[in-house]
Amino acid sequence: MTTTAGTPHAHTRRSFLTRVGAVGGASALYGSMEALGLFASPADAATATPDFAPPRAADLPDSARARGTNVVILGAGSAGLAAAYELGKAGYDCTVLEARDRPGGRAKTIRRGDKLTDTDGVTQTCRFDDGLYFNAGPARIPNHHVTLDYCRELGVPIEALVNANAESLYYHENTSTTNYGELAGTAVTHRQAKADVYGYISELLAQAADQGALDTVLSADDAERLVALANSLGGLTGGRYAGNGRRGYVDAPGAGHDAGVVGTPPSMSAILQSQFGTRFAFEFGWDQAMMMWQPVGGMDRISAALAAAVGGKRRITYNAPVTQIDNRPDGVRVSYRHNGRTRTIDADYCVNTIPPMVLTNIPNNFAQATKDALAVPTGANTGKIGLQYGRRWWEEDDKIFGGITATNMDISGIWYPSSGFLSRKGVVVGYYSGSYSGLTVPDRAARAVEQGVKIHGAKYRDELETSFSIAWPKEPYSLGGWVNWPGGRGAAYDLLLRPDGRTYFAGDHLSYLTAWQAGAFESARLTVTALHERVAATAA
Amino acid sequence: MTTTAGTPHAHTRRSFLTRVGAVGGASALYGSMEALGLFASPADAATATPDFAPPRAADLPDSARARGTNVVILGAGSAGLAAAYELGKAGYDCTVLEARDRPGGRAKTIRRGDKLTDTDGVTQTCRFDDGLYFNAGPARIPNHHVTLDYCRELGVPIEALVNANAESLYYHENTSTTNYGELAGTAVTHRQAKADVYGYISELLAQAADQGALDTVLSADDAERLVALANSLGGLTGGRYAGNGRRGYVDAPGAGHDAGVVGTPPSMSAILQSQFGTRFAFEFGWDQAMMMWQPVGGMDRISAALAAAVGGKRRITYNAPVTQIDNRPDGVRVSYRHNGRTRTIDADYCVNTIPPMVLTNIPNNFAQATKDALAVPTGANTGKIGLQYGRRWWEEDDKIFGGITATNMDISGIWYPSSGFLSRKGVVVGYYSGSYSGLTVPDRAARAVEQGVKIHGAKYRDELETSFSIAWPKEPYSLGGWVNWPGGRGAAYDLLLRPDGRTYFAGDHLSYLTAWQAGAFESARLTVTALHERVAATAA
Repeated sequence: MTTTAGTPHAHTRRSFLTRVGAVGGASALYGSMEALGLFASPADAATATPDFAPPRAADLPDSARARGTNVVILGAGSAGLAAAYELGKAGYDCTVLEARDRPGGRAKTIRRGDKLTDTDGVTQTCRFDDGLYFNAGPARIPNHHVTLDYCRELGVPIEALVNANAESLYYHENTSTTNYGELAGTAVTHRQAKADVYGYISELLAQAADQGALDTVLSADDAERLVALANSLGGLTGGRYAGNGRRGYVDAPGAGHDAGVVGTPPSMSAILQSQFGTRFAFEFGWDQAMMMWQPVGGMDRISAALAAAVGGKRRITYNAPVTQIDNRPDGVRVSYRHNGRTRTIDADYCVNTIPPMVLTNIPNNFAQATKDALAVPTGANTGKIGLQYGRRWWEEDDKIFGGITATNMDISGIWYPSSGFLSRKGVVVGYYSGSYSGLTVPDRAARAVEQGVKIHGAKYRDELETSFSIAWPKEPYSLGGWVNWPGGRGAAYDLLLRPDGRTYFAGDHLSYLTAWQAGAFESARLTVTALHERVAATAA
Repeated sequence: MTTTAGTPHAHTRRSFLTRVGAVGGASALYGSMEALGLFASPADAATATPDFAPPRAADLPDSARARGTNVVILGAGSAGLAAAYELGKAGYDCTVLEARDRPGGRAKTIRRGDKLTDTDGVTQTCRFDDGLYFNAGPARIPNHHVTLDYCRELGVPIEALVNANAESLYYHENTSTTNYGELAGTAVTHRQAKADVYGYISELLAQAADQGALDTVLSADDAERLVALANSLGGLTGGRYAGNGRRGYVDAPGAGHDAGVVGTPPSMSAILQSQFGTRFAFEFGWDQAMMMWQPVGGMDRISAALAAAVGGKRRITYNAPVTQIDNRPDGVRVSYRHNGRTRTIDADYCVNTIPPMVLTNIPNNFAQATKDALAVPTGANTGKIGLQYGRRWWEEDDKIFGGITATNMDISGIWYPSSGFLSRKGVVVGYYSGSYSGLTVPDRAARAVEQGVKIHGAKYRDELETSFSIAWPKEPYSLGGWVNWPGGRGAAYDLLLRPDGRTYFAGDHLSYLTAWQAGAFESARLTVTALHERVAATAA
């Protein structure tokens, strides 16, 4: 297959390994390393890949030096688990310390019985029906993320995450500074907004081309092609947009004489003033374009599978908050609390995936430059609320099967569930926003519902059964939904990419995929590759 | 929820019933009929809807007259099954005659062991691995079709059908009449084509607005809004399109210093000449816009569920091709072949869903006008091929998880499977086209693979394991993928919407949803409503 994405990129061997790993998962990577003569095939290399292949060949060349080298990994989130998984496959003796009672970190799925206590000491218990849930942290996986390769390798089934749907809605209400015109305060389907916006801009394009306004930049042939494109893209008749079936029907086509009745579109001016079109690019985004994916049963199925592949409680100690980290000449000493006692572990190396905002509060003997760098990133303020409804009214009444309604209200959007279609109940995500972190738990629900009612009507309040909200800045051991680098990635970012003594850092904050599990995975893969190269280079 | 689709449509009671049925399924319809005081609640009306509610209250008001009235239904496809299902719920005594050995008609899923003999006498046996399949007929369900309401009512689980995917491809090769320029013969992702096309047309829009070329049609404020829209939609920098991450990367962003490298887009002229943009509107279509759906396990799960709900073999006689249809003063007499003998059934009414192309070959005593009308529609020439590959290379190598690659070659497209993601093998649909119906079975596969190789390379041939193709014009009892109405729906269409004596006609060909299962369902619902009204009006 040839594409014109650009000229081939010259890869360093490491970037090549990372890339191949990202493209084909461990098996492809193994094959390529074998092709490069980096190491011989392990015994199982010849066996065919079964469905949902279990973990096999290491992403790092197996190494005699790895055996007997122990590594303590701080944090059992996506980065810590991937580090333990890849190092373990290469023969390292890994121990993972996790402050929480579960793996996954921010990759948290909220289910019945979940009990979370925030930094204010407020405890929420989830009352959803069994089988209902929402992903409080990462919730979508793009086609091209290494996350899907881990799903394949670990046997985690996936299903579509509906990130865009013609039936979901746009809703803009006027603000003190912006008047959205006659469509202000009106919920309009993506379908309708797209037909109207593309219809009118196509009309303008065709008009400009016909009037020769583009003759300076377009050849006669290209101008003709542009007009043909405009007619197709806009569904124009006689060079004009007058509405068509793309926008939906006031009476849909059916049987017999029911040919369907198309509605009349608002004026071009009304469509431009609505500013709906400025939201379309979301669907073109590298990280947001459909298709997108989620694990069947909840995002935490990935970290659960990774934790199991790592060795479970044999390798991971839960409820073990770290209290002290000291680099030593020959290794790293880590102290932590467990079962009411302080314990100490000595390791040859440490992979530290604790978020900087949390790590700065843990006593350590890092170089001052490292301490300064860790103080730079700040925790992003974001959160979500899950609203359980007794009836899937969005499907039954509004024909919305998954997708996201976008609005300029501070809920930012409404996510309709991408699982349990056609069943009785469901959990809608009522906001994805930092504006609710400062509110009490009941006030978050009240405010979110109040805004949803403007879009969906009274049923949005009347059919609500229970809710659960999360404010990531108030989550202990996270203190933010992700990190912001004030002024962008700079010296502090660069410094943390290098080890401090025998302590290495990893996490999505050390990648260009911030807030994505793939950022944590890629960072962990890069970090363990560096650690492994150092170990392999060490004289015996 | 308010939308601006248009002014509310004034419904007749019947269209209201059909519409409500379409919106909420039987339960909603039942409720509304109760609200209209059309009939009293049956005993089960008060019970809550469980997950995947089984069939309940009838879509037609139960009627004493219905009991004891028998109806013979010809054809156990989507129309015949829906007619039997709805009439049965209303109390009618239904018998269904089906020429094939299975329900579903064209809603056929091809699986291992399937054996089809075409009108040339050529028999194909499916050699797919167990669990692999493709839908040879209807393969997608839009959000708004009544088909999903039947899935809900009958407990048929659904999953996403990926009809559009940023990772799937466009491929145009030059023809004797069209030169596609430098991108001819190059496979380009939807993602990249959209970024480039929207980028350049946005640049042109902004330019036209800046130059005042649109001042005659746009106010100064609207021109400003248009420029803002163009900058957002095109991802412009300084009013120009120079490529960005939306189109994909030559080196994707990753961890550490890997910020990603964006490729350089082809020229505006090359993008216009490629004509990729003229394909974008497909995704805006009323019937094609995402999200779309399919039953888990194959499209035939719907007809299987309907057949079971109807009463299975207690109501449906398979392997029973109709040989004679005679309207009689007091009913309808139908003869059919079964187990080598000719049998006869007398019924009060008949619902005839046999495709016109087949029906015209069956002796009958219809009015000459009916015979003439049945001879008007012609069978559409279309078909598909399923290609089983031993490895899901489209997922592993190309990051294509479902979706359709579109081309101007006569395969028309390549469908990647929307189920079994991340598993080992899969079935790709290698063409959806009428151009292959005249070829031998081996030649169909050879020609389809030859074209696929141009897009995906040698693996498209080398990793192929087995294939199965269908040519609908050669399928006995179908004789076409759907019907065409030469010159459009006219007098013949109108005539067949009315009964001939006590014989009623139904099928997707009698709807504005031709080739959709929803067309068959809506037609059946309309027809049984008319039949029921006639029965209810009949003096005892």
